[in-house]
Amino acid sequence: MAIPAYDELTRTFTRLHRFAHLGSLAAWDQAVMMPAGGNAARGTAMAELHVLMHSQLTAPWLKDALRAAEQEDLGFLERANLREMRRAWEAANLLPSRLVEAKTLAETRCEHAWREQRPRNDWDGFAANLREVVRLSREEAGLLAQFKECSPYDALVDRFEPGMTSDTIEAVFREVATWLPGLIERVRARQASEMVNRPHGPFPILAQQSLAKEIMEILGFDFTRGRLDVSVHPLCGGVPEDVRITTRYDEDDVTRSLMGVIHETGHGCYEQNLPQEWLEQPVGAARSMAIHESQSLLYEMQLSRSPAFFELITPLIRKHCGDRPGVTPENLARCATRVTPGPIRVDADEVCYPAHIILRFEIERELINGRMEIKDIPERWNGKMRDFLGVDTRGNFRDGPMQDIHWSQGAFGYFPSYTLGAMYAAQLFSAIRNCHPDLDEQVADGHLTPIFNWLRANIWSKGSGLKTGELIHTATGEGLNPAHLRRHLETRYLG
Amino acid sequence: MAIPAYDELTRTFTRLHRFAHLGSLAAWDQAVMMPAGGNAARGTAMAELHVLMHSQLTAPWLKDALRAAEQEDLGFLERANLREMRRAWEAANLLPSRLVEAKTLAETRCEHAWREQRPRNDWDGFAANLREVVRLSREEAGLLAQFKECSPYDALVDRFEPGMTSDTIEAVFREVATWLPGLIERVRARQASEMVNRPHGPFPILAQQSLAKEIMEILGFDFTRGRLDVSVHPLCGGVPEDVRITTRYDEDDVTRSLMGVIHETGHGCYEQNLPQEWLEQPVGAARSMAIHESQSLLYEMQLSRSPAFFELITPLIRKHCGDRPGVTPENLARCATRVTPGPIRVDADEVCYPAHIILRFEIERELINGRMEIKDIPERWNGKMRDFLGVDTRGNFRDGPMQDIHWSQGAFGYFPSYTLGAMYAAQLFSAIRNCHPDLDEQVADGHLTPIFNWLRANIWSKGSGLKTGELIHTATGEGLNPAHLRRHLETRYLG
Repeated sequence: MAIPAYDELTRTFTRLHRFAHLGSLAAWDQAVMMPAGGNAARGTAMAELHVLMHSQLTAPWLKDALRAAEQEDLGFLERANLREMRRAWEAANLLPSRLVEAKTLAETRCEHAWREQRPRNDWDGFAANLREVVRLSREEAGLLAQFKECSPYDALVDRFEPGMTSDTIEAVFREVATWLPGLIERVRARQASEMVNRPHGPFPILAQQSLAKEIMEILGFDFTRGRLDVSVHPLCGGVPEDVRITTRYDEDDVTRSLMGVIHETGHGCYEQNLPQEWLEQPVGAARSMAIHESQSLLYEMQLSRSPAFFELITPLIRKHCGDRPGVTPENLARCATRVTPGPIRVDADEVCYPAHIILRFEIERELINGRMEIKDIPERWNGKMRDFLGVDTRGNFRDGPMQDIHWSQGAFGYFPSYTLGAMYAAQLFSAIRNCHPDLDEQVADGHLTPIFNWLRANIWSKGSGLKTGELIHTATGEGLNPAHLRRHLETRYLG
Repeated sequence: MAIPAYDELTRTFTRLHRFAHLGSLAAWDQAVMMPAGGNAARGTAMAELHVLMHSQLTAPWLKDALRAAEQEDLGFLERANLREMRRAWEAANLLPSRLVEAKTLAETRCEHAWREQRPRNDWDGFAANLREVVRLSREEAGLLAQFKECSPYDALVDRFEPGMTSDTIEAVFREVATWLPGLIERVRARQASEMVNRPHGPFPILAQQSLAKEIMEILGFDFTRGRLDVSVHPLCGGVPEDVRITTRYDEDDVTRSLMGVIHETGHGCYEQNLPQEWLEQPVGAARSMAIHESQSLLYEMQLSRSPAFFELITPLIRKHCGDRPGVTPENLARCATRVTPGPIRVDADEVCYPAHIILRFEIERELINGRMEIKDIPERWNGKMRDFLGVDTRGNFRDGPMQDIHWSQGAFGYFPSYTLGAMYAAQLFSAIRNCHPDLDEQVADGHLTPIFNWLRANIWSKGSGLKTGELIHTATGEGLNPAHLRRHLETRYLG
């Protein structure tokens, strides 16, 4: 009897998972451990692995095997696995290799030049390189749109947020846009008279490190299957079986690195608690970018920037770093929730953050759908920054449309994930609160298990078994609902 | 026109080199960084890579391509490259996969049990598992011997030391055995009245680390293409473009870790100075195990355990670790050259070390050639230990034939490389001395460039272009000559 096509497919995807393990490790090492002189050899080794994996995903037999497996009698998770296999197959097969190569080349050139153009505020130089990236991204989006029967921009969003449409994004973002500027104004008025006293360092790096590790453990991170190290850009890498989190330390500021570590720990706990028995298959992977971000933001924003959490960790900060003026739960919570509109997305607080994303979403959608050109970006950008945040970015391209790496990398369609993640985080945490009305007291007492248990049961252990909409609905009883983010912000900042 | 077979082969071996890069990195990470819980996933990922590389090396077209390339018009290094390709091909193709799998299984079982049997001194339990490893190693050796037209044991030696025969090893080892026991006795008599004052710690780990790094730089190690870290067993891993050295620190002892670091730095400088333009090809790799060991021993034994070198580094030890009683060049050199016969190979000083190797060589050769059985090992071992070193190991299997991991791993034929390496090191250093009669003064003054230049020109940059015998003859004007080791030991220990 012939081996079922599904079984043949699982073998191939197991192999791909194992190769991906080596690729993830090589990328982590490159960011964290590798000396500069090792870069060229590492680059060629990683490229060779990429070619290998791509060739296995584009082997002609896979097309027929996927179709055959779809006719086989499969259980629920097997069927979900097959769906995710097809997603991976489509990502590797739908685009002609000529286009993929040209796009990689254009992106590499654009990003490489951007690193020097940004400090020089050289918008014209950047725009010249970006033109080719946008042209090829439009071509890519057009081809994918034809296949997926959607708008070009939606086809790009679907790579990061399967099933999400720009109509949905637009609806929720438009809703947010109605109340966000007013909320920011009211919060700022209220905080104007608030006393905050930023604790001053030096907070020795080693002390911060041991503090970070103790808090990671409190947050459920399993150090027998993961590490904390240092890199220029904080990240959560590695593999689910061995999660590699990084941060960077600032001797003058103990909370900045700590909040970053907590954010990455949210990603890390998701990875560590994916369904063990499915880890080598696509269905065992994290659901989507926005769901991943919802876990990091649930940890960082919902859970940790709260007075209850600072009650829990203030004694630990004192234990590791000594007692300093300003190291009190109340003051630290105030410091962690200051709202200050500014031009830079990655420096934005949780109230202002959605404005940065809505702006980018509106621009990149128009750009990809061919209703806007690169030359029109700065004016649009400046207007939105003024309307949403009251920030003047005219002439400041460096801290305007040149601040992010995403567009130079051709990652159009990615930005919405951040704010979708914030909304999911608020919605999920609200569901947890409903189950545990005394949650703040439990948090202050260090009883975080109810949170872990809820997330494990409803999100972490699900992998990619459910589609995103199903996952959220099953977990919270409703679809994506931005009201939870609004209520969270109003309660925390105006309550 | 068809692509020359040689060019096709170089593409395949380039690809294999890049995959090997990922494998080396994964192995280093496993030893140095990986938390215990990541081991299972890492193991399967590395095994998958191994299967991939093996399948590429056993692809049927390679056999014809090698034969075709051997008819092509090639330059000297291309021809040498082809020879090394054939070696790699033979290692992967000459043995039936059934035997390779059975042997891997038996070795894994034997080594795994050994880890618990050794502390329990359980020789019978160990011997029971070793029987299968020896049986399969004999089968392996027999098959390889048929192909290579040599004795079974020689066929195994050839895997580590291409071109070396057990007749040659026997001749040089027999020569050493005539003078070594007497030398040890005279050195011990002389050292009996010597005052040594082992410096006492604590020497803080961080201080030792910065000391080690400074000395590595003095020894020519390039930290833009390498690292120093900590692992349970010191090693030199990574890839030539990014050499990863490890050590372990002991707060009570500053020289032990340092000498280990210097040893690994010898390996590391060899790797870092292999011919850059050939690194992705087999001919660009280090020549053999013994030549690799000659570089580490040249650094550790010839160069570093000398009064001149301690003159150079004593101020650095004081700078990093503070001034302690006993931290003088003369006393440190005396400490580093104490001769104390004992049962353990890895703890042996350079005078006693060859005795440990000769004993193992004699036993493993008889074992593989079928002239001795496992049950006869202990008696033979005890007799040789008594004759060579005056050490009584009767009943002490743990510190006798169970002390090494090699046999449980089926690595028969490896042990001679250590002492061949010591002989090559003495021979090479003697050649360097001939070029630089004032070498000791130069070393004491920190002028090590003449040593680096000589090694780069004569060993490092040669890769595997020459056969071992040719390499040594070209570098020193003669073949392997154990007289240099004897002269070195007599000069240092009786001079």
